[in-house]
Amino acid sequence: MNGAKSKQTRWLTSLQMMTDLPLPPGRTIGILGGGQLGRMLAIAAAQLGLRVHIYCPQSDAPAFDVSAFKTVAGYDDMTALRKFAQSVDVVTIEFENIPAETLAEISKYSEIAPDANTLAIIQDRLMEKNMLRESGIDVTPYEPVSSRDELKLALNKIGMPAILKTRRFGYDGKGQQKIDLKSDPDEIYNKFQSQPLILEAFVPFDIEFSVVLVRNRDGEILEYTPSENIHKNHILSRTIVPANLPDATLEKARSIARQIGSELKFVGVLAVEMFYQKSSGLNQILVNEIAPRVHNSGHWTIDACTVSQFENHIRAVAGWPLGSTVRHSDAEMINLLGSDIEAWHRIANNKTVALHIYGKERAAAGRKMGHATRLFPRKDGSSRFYPER
Amino acid sequence: MNGAKSKQTRWLTSLQMMTDLPLPPGRTIGILGGGQLGRMLAIAAAQLGLRVHIYCPQSDAPAFDVSAFKTVAGYDDMTALRKFAQSVDVVTIEFENIPAETLAEISKYSEIAPDANTLAIIQDRLMEKNMLRESGIDVTPYEPVSSRDELKLALNKIGMPAILKTRRFGYDGKGQQKIDLKSDPDEIYNKFQSQPLILEAFVPFDIEFSVVLVRNRDGEILEYTPSENIHKNHILSRTIVPANLPDATLEKARSIARQIGSELKFVGVLAVEMFYQKSSGLNQILVNEIAPRVHNSGHWTIDACTVSQFENHIRAVAGWPLGSTVRHSDAEMINLLGSDIEAWHRIANNKTVALHIYGKERAAAGRKMGHATRLFPRKDGSSRFYPER
Repeated sequence: MNGAKSKQTRWLTSLQMMTDLPLPPGRTIGILGGGQLGRMLAIAAAQLGLRVHIYCPQSDAPAFDVSAFKTVAGYDDMTALRKFAQSVDVVTIEFENIPAETLAEISKYSEIAPDANTLAIIQDRLMEKNMLRESGIDVTPYEPVSSRDELKLALNKIGMPAILKTRRFGYDGKGQQKIDLKSDPDEIYNKFQSQPLILEAFVPFDIEFSVVLVRNRDGEILEYTPSENIHKNHILSRTIVPANLPDATLEKARSIARQIGSELKFVGVLAVEMFYQKSSGLNQILVNEIAPRVHNSGHWTIDACTVSQFENHIRAVAGWPLGSTVRHSDAEMINLLGSDIEAWHRIANNKTVALHIYGKERAAAGRKMGHATRLFPRKDGSSRFYPER
Repeated sequence: MNGAKSKQTRWLTSLQMMTDLPLPPGRTIGILGGGQLGRMLAIAAAQLGLRVHIYCPQSDAPAFDVSAFKTVAGYDDMTALRKFAQSVDVVTIEFENIPAETLAEISKYSEIAPDANTLAIIQDRLMEKNMLRESGIDVTPYEPVSSRDELKLALNKIGMPAILKTRRFGYDGKGQQKIDLKSDPDEIYNKFQSQPLILEAFVPFDIEFSVVLVRNRDGEILEYTPSENIHKNHILSRTIVPANLPDATLEKARSIARQIGSELKFVGVLAVEMFYQKSSGLNQILVNEIAPRVHNSGHWTIDACTVSQFENHIRAVAGWPLGSTVRHSDAEMINLLGSDIEAWHRIANNKTVALHIYGKERAAAGRKMGHATRLFPRKDGSSRFYPER
């Protein structure tokens, strides 16, 4: 054993002299946001030997429990943002609605993945839909609305029912309002207090589903099996994998998602939410919206795939090769919302599920407190789900 | 949304008024030791919404990167130990060779699982073997040795070749010496400098394997599929699951492990290392040794089971129900030792493996730097590996 000491190499230190990607183990990824997504990203980074620095205004953010470094400061605190950006090797995000000024300040000192231009498009429902339409991807009919008169014109074009949405900062059903023949458009318009809006056709769909994909800096793209998503009160309630759709539809959905990831030159995980309209007789897929980050409908990948969406996001951001997105099992994920979490002991006692709890103290109604995933043998019986044995 | 705020409950705070187990999410588990086992335990705790407080003398311990609380202090620092024990809800360990004084000090202020009495037995190879023999479990022939004369008497009883081992603090081949006809027993005895010793018969075995089991406070015991372990230079190199043994042998091994866990009234994860002697014609199993903690030969459970050995240890220590130990996939785990880790990028580029890196800076020869697990569809084709669908 005496000889061993002299032979040992400070391998991380020597690797740290490198300035280019890929980031070797030991280096630090900064994450804007400290919620459950940041927490699961931090865990995934740790499994690869990478450190994270969480930046979040809330001092009790769930991700702080598993981060090597932490900053508690507002997204408008330019000094804190500069110090944060200077102390990490690359920055990523756990939520898309980060102010442009925040991204601009960070960009002075560190790379951000996904980048500020991409986020600017996806932060704005109108820009996002324009981008999709220009790429030849089917989306729900829409019209921009910036005045009462434009709303009336848009309603004439789109027809009713329709949904009026804020262009920015909407999520989980917030910032939107359905308009039908009984509605008073003026009254509804006034509620939005002159925010930039978009009017979208109300599309009756049979199945809501999503494709979670990851693209790395070398342009490698891999997508996970499309999942069927069941919402309650506009919040994801359940995800079923694979989505109950014809094989050709699943393949088309994967291809649409790949096209979006590729055209955006996206770096990281991207979720594409889609509608499937069996009734249209065309097996039509419409893209509803894009989330430029790890996504609730991809949580099942932690338990049913060798490499989860969280690890693949970290790999992409760190300039690593991607990990396999192939599932070894079918899965069903249930969100634990608000007081659902009070049943944690009963769920922990169920031998068929993998339980994930986010460590949040307050269980506000509808708040995402955890999730539970149940695995099943692959229904397609594919016994060769791992390549190159 | 205004109504939601008033409805929200501080569910963790109200749960924290409870004094008994199970520990609800939000509570803190103290862990003695901050190596890769502590790191993987910390990650597992976080996935259940529990916090950890790592106690470790090394300021750059790998587990600190993923712990909510940390203490850098020696195992003989009674003040630091007291503060640590008082600040957590329960204490557990990541290595067995913790001084009795350390355990005694902590026991004044906090419960330890596994407990000090159990650790005292397993820390001493002689007490461990006596316990096993008294339980009717087959072990390699052994004799205590505390003098040169006792060594000669023991060699007469046991025969040669034999292995002389320290009763305490041996691991990975350290603290042991083979004795054969060419050896000078006096010279070998002198090397050990009057430490208490044990002489064990040298057993030729065909397969070395282990059973990792978990027992919780309610006495529930579950074991993982026995794994075949291939050592190089006395350090685990590869684990193959399931072990290539007849079904009846696997079942007997599981039963022996359950018996040990039950007789020790063990709380947490326990690994039982065994030898299989096909050549004896009896399909004989000998128990080699017990590790009273999560074990390298159980790392495959992270990727091939819904609930890993790390999560099940945390569940047991926290007084939770156990999670399923059933594997969804067969697996093979390879340790990344010393400079093996320099190939991290090539391994990360292999789509068939799950890569785990421990974040250690120095890659000393033989040091455990990470591991890689490859999953395969279950060879037994069991399509009903999840109960109660």
